[in-house]
Amino acid sequence: MPSRPNKVLNSPAIRRMPLYLHWLLGMRGLGKKTVSTTELADCMKLGWIVVRKDIALTGVSGRPRVGYDVDRLVAAIRAFLGWKETRRAALVGAGALGSAILGYGEFANCGLDVALVFDSDPEKAGRRIRGRTVRPISELPEAFRRAPPEIAILCVPAAAAQETADLLVRNGVRYLWNFADVALEVPRDVIVQRESIAAGLAMLSVKIRNDRSGRRSRIED
Amino acid sequence: MPSRPNKVLNSPAIRRMPLYLHWLLGMRGLGKKTVSTTELADCMKLGWIVVRKDIALTGVSGRPRVGYDVDRLVAAIRAFLGWKETRRAALVGAGALGSAILGYGEFANCGLDVALVFDSDPEKAGRRIRGRTVRPISELPEAFRRAPPEIAILCVPAAAAQETADLLVRNGVRYLWNFADVALEVPRDVIVQRESIAAGLAMLSVKIRNDRSGRRSRIED
Repeated sequence: MPSRPNKVLNSPAIRRMPLYLHWLLGMRGLGKKTVSTTELADCMKLGWIVVRKDIALTGVSGRPRVGYDVDRLVAAIRAFLGWKETRRAALVGAGALGSAILGYGEFANCGLDVALVFDSDPEKAGRRIRGRTVRPISELPEAFRRAPPEIAILCVPAAAAQETADLLVRNGVRYLWNFADVALEVPRDVIVQRESIAAGLAMLSVKIRNDRSGRRSRIED
Repeated sequence: MPSRPNKVLNSPAIRRMPLYLHWLLGMRGLGKKTVSTTELADCMKLGWIVVRKDIALTGVSGRPRVGYDVDRLVAAIRAFLGWKETRRAALVGAGALGSAILGYGEFANCGLDVALVFDSDPEKAGRRIRGRTVRPISELPEAFRRAPPEIAILCVPAAAAQETADLLVRNGVRYLWNFADVALEVPRDVIVQRESIAAGLAMLSVKIRNDRSGRRSRIED
């Protein structure tokens, strides 16, 4: 294992990458071959220095007076995000939240294949949601043994989240995408990406507070 | 309007504030009066330098060997987020996503009162979702005139998002919480907080890529 420095990656930049990709794919669709920092900064509503730094993370550099090559930048962002390969995922919790997530149309472009859907409610077993069949959670161990998913998407109520995470980890999952809005306890080698509605509301709230107080602080997200 | 510097606020720190609040309220519930940086760092799974910097944003400073006063820190984080007052909100789009958001139990603790729910589907009008009655969107202008919400929560499908945002802005909304996963065009004085499922997936993907490649880079979020 290479011993690289314990660098802290810039999470706002990572979070912005899909939006860069969105704009770049739109431009490519219109036949555009190159794009300048200024054009990208306008799309992203960011300063050009931030745009330069973000793109530098992907390893692409622009050429003076020409800008960035759109195709190269698209490929570099996809490589940066690891979206060139497809990862198999299982979603647990087929309620309103799980259904909303399954309805997201862009997973295929993001290297995610949500192949399995489970729910603890036996009433839901066999139902079709957005083209997938819901299975009872009792079938999870066997299904994971047959074809292990790399990622589990946790959409269960907060009260059931830890227990479900334990079940997933016991059945070999090491990457958890947690929408349950609780802090999970997991072994050290398990990676959790926690989505928190309160985090987004905190961002909105600080933007509102700044707006109300006439502060000019920028929050780049 | 005071002319302050165009400071860029640290968005990961803002996003973390609700989680600090969660841990602090838990400690307070257990009768804990003070908390050290190290204890908070353990809860948050962050380095203590990051914790110090985050807390400094709220204006609270700790005392050597004693730490932070839990009550003061709770109050300071709520003030930082503007969660001491309650803001009235309207949610538009009562599908799976809107229902999932309405199901979030913590809005009252976050200073948000989702008082109105609208949907463009006349079939949904009159239905009760999580204790709120869905109204037809045709009633929005009149309802907003009578009791204007400060915030609109946009949960409509991507294809309807711009048109719905235009309607909201025409009816006086200046703060939009956008779950539609599209980049909205709005007047300069309208503030948008965009939630993007792809942004979270980008974070997870980079964490996985780092894990697979044996990189030790930390991503603090």
